[in-house]
Amino acid sequence: MKAVTVKQPGDADQLQIVDMEKPGIEDNEILVKVKATAINRTDIINRKSRLEYMTNPILGVEVAGEVVETGSNTNIEVGTAVMGLVNGGSYAEYVAMPEDRAMAVPKALSYEEAAAIPEVFLTAYQTLFWIGKLKEKETVLVHAGGSGVGTAAIQLAKQISKANVITTAGSRDKLEFCESLGADRGINYKEQDFPEEVLQFTDQQGAELILDFIGASYWDKNIKSIKVDGRWVLIGFLGGGTVNEVQLMDLMSKRIQLTGTLLTPRSDAYKKALSDDFVEHALPLFENKAIRPIVDKVFDLSDIAAAHEHMEANKNIGKIIVKVQD
Amino acid sequence: MKAVTVKQPGDADQLQIVDMEKPGIEDNEILVKVKATAINRTDIINRKSRLEYMTNPILGVEVAGEVVETGSNTNIEVGTAVMGLVNGGSYAEYVAMPEDRAMAVPKALSYEEAAAIPEVFLTAYQTLFWIGKLKEKETVLVHAGGSGVGTAAIQLAKQISKANVITTAGSRDKLEFCESLGADRGINYKEQDFPEEVLQFTDQQGAELILDFIGASYWDKNIKSIKVDGRWVLIGFLGGGTVNEVQLMDLMSKRIQLTGTLLTPRSDAYKKALSDDFVEHALPLFENKAIRPIVDKVFDLSDIAAAHEHMEANKNIGKIIVKVQD
Repeated sequence: MKAVTVKQPGDADQLQIVDMEKPGIEDNEILVKVKATAINRTDIINRKSRLEYMTNPILGVEVAGEVVETGSNTNIEVGTAVMGLVNGGSYAEYVAMPEDRAMAVPKALSYEEAAAIPEVFLTAYQTLFWIGKLKEKETVLVHAGGSGVGTAAIQLAKQISKANVITTAGSRDKLEFCESLGADRGINYKEQDFPEEVLQFTDQQGAELILDFIGASYWDKNIKSIKVDGRWVLIGFLGGGTVNEVQLMDLMSKRIQLTGTLLTPRSDAYKKALSDDFVEHALPLFENKAIRPIVDKVFDLSDIAAAHEHMEANKNIGKIIVKVQD
Repeated sequence: MKAVTVKQPGDADQLQIVDMEKPGIEDNEILVKVKATAINRTDIINRKSRLEYMTNPILGVEVAGEVVETGSNTNIEVGTAVMGLVNGGSYAEYVAMPEDRAMAVPKALSYEEAAAIPEVFLTAYQTLFWIGKLKEKETVLVHAGGSGVGTAAIQLAKQISKANVITTAGSRDKLEFCESLGADRGINYKEQDFPEEVLQFTDQQGAELILDFIGASYWDKNIKSIKVDGRWVLIGFLGGGTVNEVQLMDLMSKRIQLTGTLLTPRSDAYKKALSDDFVEHALPLFENKAIRPIVDKVFDLSDIAAAHEHMEANKNIGKIIVKVQD
């Protein structure tokens, strides 16, 4: 089968399409014929400097496709359309995954659309509700509103918690799109001081929850934007990974709960539990179209390097999808 | 009545005993004849540079004494022996407090011992169980084990959660005392590398919970000592308030939950709820002597400056008490 691996850690030109054996499956696994996969920051980091917790030489952490083989200890039918998180290996024509985290593809969606769901919607769901404990009508500040996780978080927060959603992005296009997804207030971080806008929007109280993919460059501004007793979930650092000066009194006097998280290295059991909860509480919203996967652009597998470069240019709104086979 | 205020923000010699009116009480308050109060870091900070949230010109945030007057909307009897948190004003012969956070003094205890309970035991209880969510048999790392909150936390963690308690302190005397309170492992931070000891004690897993009063100087070591998915509660920064170069990836890859907190500025409703929970779950342990208040030294009110200096020298094990009147 065709699969994408990395020659040497480095730029997108280090990606190569090679011929490999189809993966074998364990008793509790299924083999999925990959129709589509999607690009994640994790893949880019893993391409640049091999991540220790990624043991699969083939890149890719999510899939949408068709079940073609099942382990002896599974109940799923061959031919079922599934989507979900894999432990690496989805940039390929076939990938193995534990059956218990395969989610049925909502009938309303194509495989390309389905491939835009697992990583970003599960991450947004986990950070908003499991870690961030977002409650009805609270205010959440979603940074990078135009990103994959951003577009997912705006919709989930709005539909599930009727939250007041504030989002930041760097262009009018992205902000208008975020508003079309339900964001109540869009802030152009290039033109406006976002803490000032957040405080104005929240009657000087600040946001109860911040989803932060930006890190260092927003540190002080997040401190200003968060409400007393607020929760702040750190899931990326597009704006730098080193904060030069952290004032601990800020964390104490605002009684901030700051939680760092990564989804990919978590256990199989965690991913199953998260997928199950998501299927129960969020997936029905795709069936009735209250929520939709956001596809920025679809690339062919042969253009995988261009797909990576597109993400690195930060121009996308929503997910970058790779069509693998019909 | 006699009361202690601050002349000008500064050292202990700025403390003065002045003559003031007894405080009036609201309908929901009681007037307490102060038998004993205790010294807290908050008082020292407030003495050095007036804390905004402390509106009472008289220092002191906790009291043990006798009810001498009751508001129209209270149920407590005049003559009852009570202890609890006040909104400032306990370095005085009389102090007003909301009735709903007055706790009955356990029969086994003197007023001096009772004054050693409210602030440190409520703080330890809140940080271990409300914020830190300490579960049965987890491992907790308690820094500054000889401090007021440290000695309280060791006992509460051991008695309520049967936790494995690791503690750090700077002298053999303090460590031996901590072990007599139930600590399973004492680490002399001056002679040993505490992360190494914590990892050895926990089979290289790290501690599920850290109670941190130290801050900046222990930052990197706390990162090394904490378990994946660990909770880290920041309640002081005796080792500095500014952390240079925080690596966000450390927080993300270990999925750390870091929560800053302060007890004194919290709302009356919060203090009532915390006091109620403490009375139900922890106070019986004082009656049966499974837990005891730790009194380092008792000063007379006239020696208030010496009492402050004693805390600033960090020589105390447990609480520094001030006897106010018979």
